[in-house]
Amino acid sequence: MNSDTFPTWSDVVQAHARIVRYIHRTPVLTSSYLNERTGAELFFKCENFQKAGAFKVRGACNAVFGLPEEKLAKGVATHSSGNHALSLSYAAGRRGIPCTVVMPRTAPEAKKAAVRGYGGKIVECEPSTSSREAVFAEVVAETGAEFVHPYNDLRVITGQATCSRELFEQVPELDAVIAPIGGGGMISGTCLTVSETQPGVKVYAAEPEQADDAYRSFKAGHIIADDAPVTVADGLKVPLKENTWHYVSNYVSDIFTATEEEIIAAMRLTWERMKIVIEPSCAVPLAAIWKNPEVFRGKRVGVIITGGNVDLGKLPWMKG
Amino acid sequence: MNSDTFPTWSDVVQAHARIVRYIHRTPVLTSSYLNERTGAELFFKCENFQKAGAFKVRGACNAVFGLPEEKLAKGVATHSSGNHALSLSYAAGRRGIPCTVVMPRTAPEAKKAAVRGYGGKIVECEPSTSSREAVFAEVVAETGAEFVHPYNDLRVITGQATCSRELFEQVPELDAVIAPIGGGGMISGTCLTVSETQPGVKVYAAEPEQADDAYRSFKAGHIIADDAPVTVADGLKVPLKENTWHYVSNYVSDIFTATEEEIIAAMRLTWERMKIVIEPSCAVPLAAIWKNPEVFRGKRVGVIITGGNVDLGKLPWMKG
Repeated sequence: MNSDTFPTWSDVVQAHARIVRYIHRTPVLTSSYLNERTGAELFFKCENFQKAGAFKVRGACNAVFGLPEEKLAKGVATHSSGNHALSLSYAAGRRGIPCTVVMPRTAPEAKKAAVRGYGGKIVECEPSTSSREAVFAEVVAETGAEFVHPYNDLRVITGQATCSRELFEQVPELDAVIAPIGGGGMISGTCLTVSETQPGVKVYAAEPEQADDAYRSFKAGHIIADDAPVTVADGLKVPLKENTWHYVSNYVSDIFTATEEEIIAAMRLTWERMKIVIEPSCAVPLAAIWKNPEVFRGKRVGVIITGGNVDLGKLPWMKG
Repeated sequence: MNSDTFPTWSDVVQAHARIVRYIHRTPVLTSSYLNERTGAELFFKCENFQKAGAFKVRGACNAVFGLPEEKLAKGVATHSSGNHALSLSYAAGRRGIPCTVVMPRTAPEAKKAAVRGYGGKIVECEPSTSSREAVFAEVVAETGAEFVHPYNDLRVITGQATCSRELFEQVPELDAVIAPIGGGGMISGTCLTVSETQPGVKVYAAEPEQADDAYRSFKAGHIIADDAPVTVADGLKVPLKENTWHYVSNYVSDIFTATEEEIIAAMRLTWERMKIVIEPSCAVPLAAIWKNPEVFRGKRVGVIITGGNVDLGKLPWMKG
């Protein structure tokens, strides 16, 4: 695949074949309670059950297993304090190549331990963009590692597209798919699959009201990036970049927002009724469906549950 | 089926056909992390995803949908503050017949609300055995309802047997099945399926050390009932009765116990690694596998996850 041109369906099919041994084909769950309450037929694609606990492993594996032989020795590198850090470490570990992750020294110890558990090497930076960029530049200069961006990378987007490919195989005749939007990697992969194979299906994105840069970008027609949004949905704080903006601006039907209270309520309801552990980010689509019944009522809707990596000692409905 | 004789395989097959429209065929999940850590191959049968949140709906549905026409008008009744109360209310609601549940007035409001949500009628008693028995006798005298015991009822045991029937269809060549044991309904159903169809498979039970009456009964060769055991695994406090003792004494290979700390650690680990919400009771088998590696290493083991009804505001690892 030429990185100057956008991927096609055959790239997605190749990516899927490349990563299939390293990922789970995650199940699709339903809830008659949530169907009754929303008036829609909801199909939850459970990427919280994915390897390393999130869909990000699809894109990371596609980048890592697509690397040419001559690049293997120098390995891969990224900056992330979240699921992409875990996923790239997992993928590199499976291919037996080095992986360096630049993480803020303030990142949760549990996340750092998980990266090391998969064999990733952590280089710490200060919790600021300037420090992160400086430290990351040093790492790349020193190691010569291949940079795999968490979402603004067409190899990563192509990998994420395999998630909705599985969903369409598992659930026929969907009317729409909805996923949370942060940097836009999952939404872009979904748009890629839909635009190439399911042109009648609508793609919706859901975003925290307190980190609604994608929503405002979508309405304004150009990328708007916020500096440091604060939301319980900590996977959704990052801004769109040019590659994800391409998909969002061309293929997304609408973006909905939800308040912190609505996100937490939808998260707790999902745990209670569906008995699955999901991250706050994954609850944003359900909150959006709840708030916009006129859009979803009577429709068959795929809902991407993006991940399940939460700190069980610090749930958003716990006191203090 | 004659209630004086123990059910056969054809009773299980009939029960399954009777209830299949009202239950989920629950998925079987695996965890490569837990396989590596235990040295066993574990197959988790996820009855936490079952209707009403627990396997108990199988037995309740079999009892309710097996009722003859002439008994329907008077409905069913039981005493339970747990999953059987929810399940019997659900089953009765689906058949459109009355259901009365005697519950201690101290039972959690959420459980009472759930019973009412399924259409069950609650009659409160004091939180003592004498009050419960007196109030329940009144209810039966007044309504003429059919008593469906939570576990010491062969219709219920036959319904629970459909769970392991599905498991054996989903996972070939298991060496053993392990389930938690309280009153023994799930274990008895498992023994029924195994003894009739899989005679080479071992059945193990797991019990909290602080409520180890089944363990002591098993070792002593007769039923020992504790008065009021205290354990985080609140579904496992009840004693064996004659019908479940029949299965436990004849078909169970061994019973293992685990401490409160081991149960809570196994519960949290399951949430963290498998991303599923399980009750403390369901964590007892994993704790037992962890403690007894010599029994399980190298074996293919079915693990029954019995239910997922927990109070998310009051998890055992939360402070205060």
